[in-house]
Amino acid sequence: MKDRIITLGHGSGGRQSDELVSFLLESFRSRGIGPELEDAALLPGGYAMTVDGFTVSPRKFPGGDLGHLCVCGCANDLAVRGASPDFLGLGLIIEEGADMDEVALYMESAAAVCGGLGMTLAAGDTKVVPAGTLEGMVFTGTAFGRVLPESPPSMAKIRPGDRIIVTTSIGRHGAAIASARFNIPVEGLESDCAPLWPALKPLLPLEGLKAMRDCTRGGLGTVLCEWAEAAGLHISVNEDAIPVTLQVQSLCDILGFDPLYLACEGCAAIAVSPSDCEQALELLKASPLCGEAAVIGEVAEGEPAGMVSMRTLIGGERLVDKPWGEILPRIC
Amino acid sequence: MKDRIITLGHGSGGRQSDELVSFLLESFRSRGIGPELEDAALLPGGYAMTVDGFTVSPRKFPGGDLGHLCVCGCANDLAVRGASPDFLGLGLIIEEGADMDEVALYMESAAAVCGGLGMTLAAGDTKVVPAGTLEGMVFTGTAFGRVLPESPPSMAKIRPGDRIIVTTSIGRHGAAIASARFNIPVEGLESDCAPLWPALKPLLPLEGLKAMRDCTRGGLGTVLCEWAEAAGLHISVNEDAIPVTLQVQSLCDILGFDPLYLACEGCAAIAVSPSDCEQALELLKASPLCGEAAVIGEVAEGEPAGMVSMRTLIGGERLVDKPWGEILPRIC
Repeated sequence: MKDRIITLGHGSGGRQSDELVSFLLESFRSRGIGPELEDAALLPGGYAMTVDGFTVSPRKFPGGDLGHLCVCGCANDLAVRGASPDFLGLGLIIEEGADMDEVALYMESAAAVCGGLGMTLAAGDTKVVPAGTLEGMVFTGTAFGRVLPESPPSMAKIRPGDRIIVTTSIGRHGAAIASARFNIPVEGLESDCAPLWPALKPLLPLEGLKAMRDCTRGGLGTVLCEWAEAAGLHISVNEDAIPVTLQVQSLCDILGFDPLYLACEGCAAIAVSPSDCEQALELLKASPLCGEAAVIGEVAEGEPAGMVSMRTLIGGERLVDKPWGEILPRIC
Repeated sequence: MKDRIITLGHGSGGRQSDELVSFLLESFRSRGIGPELEDAALLPGGYAMTVDGFTVSPRKFPGGDLGHLCVCGCANDLAVRGASPDFLGLGLIIEEGADMDEVALYMESAAAVCGGLGMTLAAGDTKVVPAGTLEGMVFTGTAFGRVLPESPPSMAKIRPGDRIIVTTSIGRHGAAIASARFNIPVEGLESDCAPLWPALKPLLPLEGLKAMRDCTRGGLGTVLCEWAEAAGLHISVNEDAIPVTLQVQSLCDILGFDPLYLACEGCAAIAVSPSDCEQALELLKASPLCGEAAVIGEVAEGEPAGMVSMRTLIGGERLVDKPWGEILPRIC
């Protein structure tokens, strides 16, 4: 570890995040009690759990708010492992002086998502810290649920030939946050923040379903890099197949962001065998969230192994690497 | 709800905390998806879960640190429901500019407690927020584990005649934090922060074991009030039976605290039937943590119902009520 000071880049979800997390996990790994690095952990007895902290700023944004985001984020981490979002735990840390009605609004948003999913708030905790020691409030969510498939989706299952699907247009959460934070209103731009379970559950019976991942911090680009690295395979995608809305692209053009690395909160990448690819796409398109679902690329034995390449709109080919440094802090 | 602004008193663990929590849970309760208010939630399949946020200041204190405290706090919430602390989730929110080695130190403390308990870090999340938006760092822990007894301890089981045991001397965590924060060194004063599972597990086979609760925020006094209220019964305790160290009492005398409301992090209150009381005490005293375990009072049908009274050292009797307002913020 070269850096001794934690920077915003360490929280971006990119390469520096990997370094920080590896460093912090050493004490656990050296004792043989460290975690796998998937979205949710599989526990004995057929359960999965996940934990996720939410520091989003601003806390209300087009298409969602802190409470909505917290439940969607946790539930989606279970959903992509094939686990039903059954139980939620909420840890609230609130600055002295916060408006009670504002917190209640986020709790209402959280409860509405839970209600729709059949998810129960099982445990909670509330701490208040002195004014000036925290800007507003942060929520940490934890979710627990039954894993439905006998062999749950996992990036360890990815094989050459698998197709890569993205369930909707990318970068809408990151773009909505940037638009709100920098006060650049874009008509029709909203976060995609939504629970993915209703859209992903119908895919679980497909034998060819390999891996699913929600594209949060670091965006689709980071997910693909993690998969390629973990599988030691090459992933190639076509830029013109990746759905990006005009609103997201416009905001990216203004602010210099690449939609590939912008956070999504209601969008998953899916790896599926060629034989089940068409059916997966059909099942997804039956969900109102996934009308734009598309096959964007495939996995190959080709070189460079462990890396992602993208055929660009103008016909070139470029490597897609994990981002380095700060993208947009407090995105989730 | 009269207050519209959240104050430090709302985070003290006392009556205002109850009000805030009730207010915030309305959205969930009105949908029938709200939690019970015990230390850990019992889930189908024989699991229990808990979530707890840690904002302690200072982060290193005599007898522990943020990482140690976080794991003990979560594991103890499971232990008092009769659940084995099997899996931990850690949500870290860190201020930009924090020292990486400091965070690693807390992770090492956390891993050491986990290692001793046979607890695995199953899931984690790390967020970094811009300098100035959070003082240092906060950890939110979540724990999952198997519930061992068929009928787990619960405050709903408390009956008239039950004896109340406290497992060790009270208030040491709160006193140690106050001593460190206000720079009043007291020789030999250390937080009691420790995992209770090894001491409490042997009690689980006792048929007369009714309820257990770790006396964290709000201290022993708050736990007794919650039990009396929930059971609709009267609890009477003897001040001279409650173990308080000279160090804690001295610090309380200087700062005007009542040890009854000072936080503990390795101390539980236990309600047990008279017939099993002696055996419970013996089992506890076999643990190095519980040499000072003592019977401090009992549950009665007497008046005033739903309240706690204390026979004081000078022979009077006073009501023990839940604290109101701020006691000591960022205690845990």
